[in-house]
Amino acid sequence: MRFARFVSGFDSTIYTGIGEEGRWRVIEGSVLTGEWRRTEISFVEADVRFLAPLIPNEIIGIGANYAKDATQRATAPELPILFMKPTTTVIGTEDVIRLPPGEESIKFESELAVIIGHTARNIEERRAQDYIFGYTIANDVTAPSYFHPNGHWMIGKCWDTFCPLGPIIETELDPEATVVEAYVNGVRRQRGETRLMLTSVSRMVAYVSAFMTLKPGDVLLTGTPGGAGPVSDGDVVECRIAGIGRLRNRVAKASAAEEGLR
Amino acid sequence: MRFARFVSGFDSTIYTGIGEEGRWRVIEGSVLTGEWRRTEISFVEADVRFLAPLIPNEIIGIGANYAKDATQRATAPELPILFMKPTTTVIGTEDVIRLPPGEESIKFESELAVIIGHTARNIEERRAQDYIFGYTIANDVTAPSYFHPNGHWMIGKCWDTFCPLGPIIETELDPEATVVEAYVNGVRRQRGETRLMLTSVSRMVAYVSAFMTLKPGDVLLTGTPGGAGPVSDGDVVECRIAGIGRLRNRVAKASAAEEGLR
Repeated sequence: MRFARFVSGFDSTIYTGIGEEGRWRVIEGSVLTGEWRRTEISFVEADVRFLAPLIPNEIIGIGANYAKDATQRATAPELPILFMKPTTTVIGTEDVIRLPPGEESIKFESELAVIIGHTARNIEERRAQDYIFGYTIANDVTAPSYFHPNGHWMIGKCWDTFCPLGPIIETELDPEATVVEAYVNGVRRQRGETRLMLTSVSRMVAYVSAFMTLKPGDVLLTGTPGGAGPVSDGDVVECRIAGIGRLRNRVAKASAAEEGLR
Repeated sequence: MRFARFVSGFDSTIYTGIGEEGRWRVIEGSVLTGEWRRTEISFVEADVRFLAPLIPNEIIGIGANYAKDATQRATAPELPILFMKPTTTVIGTEDVIRLPPGEESIKFESELAVIIGHTARNIEERRAQDYIFGYTIANDVTAPSYFHPNGHWMIGKCWDTFCPLGPIIETELDPEATVVEAYVNGVRRQRGETRLMLTSVSRMVAYVSAFMTLKPGDVLLTGTPGGAGPVSDGDVVECRIAGIGRLRNRVAKASAAEEGLR
């Protein structure tokens, strides 16, 4: 099933809908709890502008999570590199990623994003799928010049607009058997098979749930394949995942009104 | 003004109240927006059990933020060490801090916590106080054995119960002129004057607001003075801040039902 949040071309109402029969059918209720029902309203996709498909609760990312190629043995590290992003980083497809003031470029990172559907604590890897609501695409935008020399990534990961999500949530996807890509100005720059993740989706859900309670609406960013690189003012990044769609964002300078850290 | 969340000894209702004339007066409405009013209900403090004084929006911490003593010049680093904790870390005073399974000890860190009252983006340091709602005490509990060797602190900071907050919010405090202490089993282990912070409260608010939008309910943990150290099963940590009060938590092993990462 495919879920989205969107506005139509006709008013400013924010709708939640499901994609069916080539249209977006407006639903009422709560997607994550499953307590929702169809309404009589629907739109053709051409009349819909997608928003980020959810406002996450927490956003937890993993670093260095892809084997270089299929010949490298995909072994999960004992202690993965994890980090958080605040919800103020979230934007939707077609929204603008803002460069930090004074920065010439930032880094795009196309990623499979996992949306938690049920409260999860200390769950086993083989049960992880029961706690996943669905999947979307994330661009884990990063400003490496703000990484602390002692290894702390927080500031480089947390600028407003640094977590495009979307365009929609797909609940029926095999996270071990899809492909994550990124295109910059139409040229493919990343292509990674999710089966090359070192810490698989199920293992990441189980691992994180061993130290913190995962809640409905938490989003796990599962790492980016090789090829992530710099983008600058005016570049258009399109993250694609087979079975979900395309998440497209333009990079632009911060507005003149915004001041910088430096 | 002093605000608290609490339950009384008489029922399970969660109240929000203000401390006045030696009692806790129940209020209705939203503390952070200022749109609240007194009710006719009040309790003596002996009949009140304090909860964490708020459910934070985001929690942002700073590392290595105290000068060793007054002779060291308190110079803010160009790039501070920042990190996040999820809201699942939050507990109240008298709640139990759980050791990660298999860990003999964890680290206590007594800290002044700043509560944001208004949305803040790119604000100047000299205006930072206008965006602060008030202050409480935090224990930035840490499991250093889960720090990644490459410098990522996330897992070590994010275990459930690793952010005791409380007991109350004080809105009238000079954050440059108070004292942060910690006592373990009644013995003083930390004592730091907040004027020795390298990145002051105002500078931290301004700095963070330069990369991310701060929102009402965001909590900034302002770093811990020297003396933070290990505590083990059965130890009682009391964090004290002059003008706010005492935040007291016992450390205990994870229950047998909880499994570990290792």
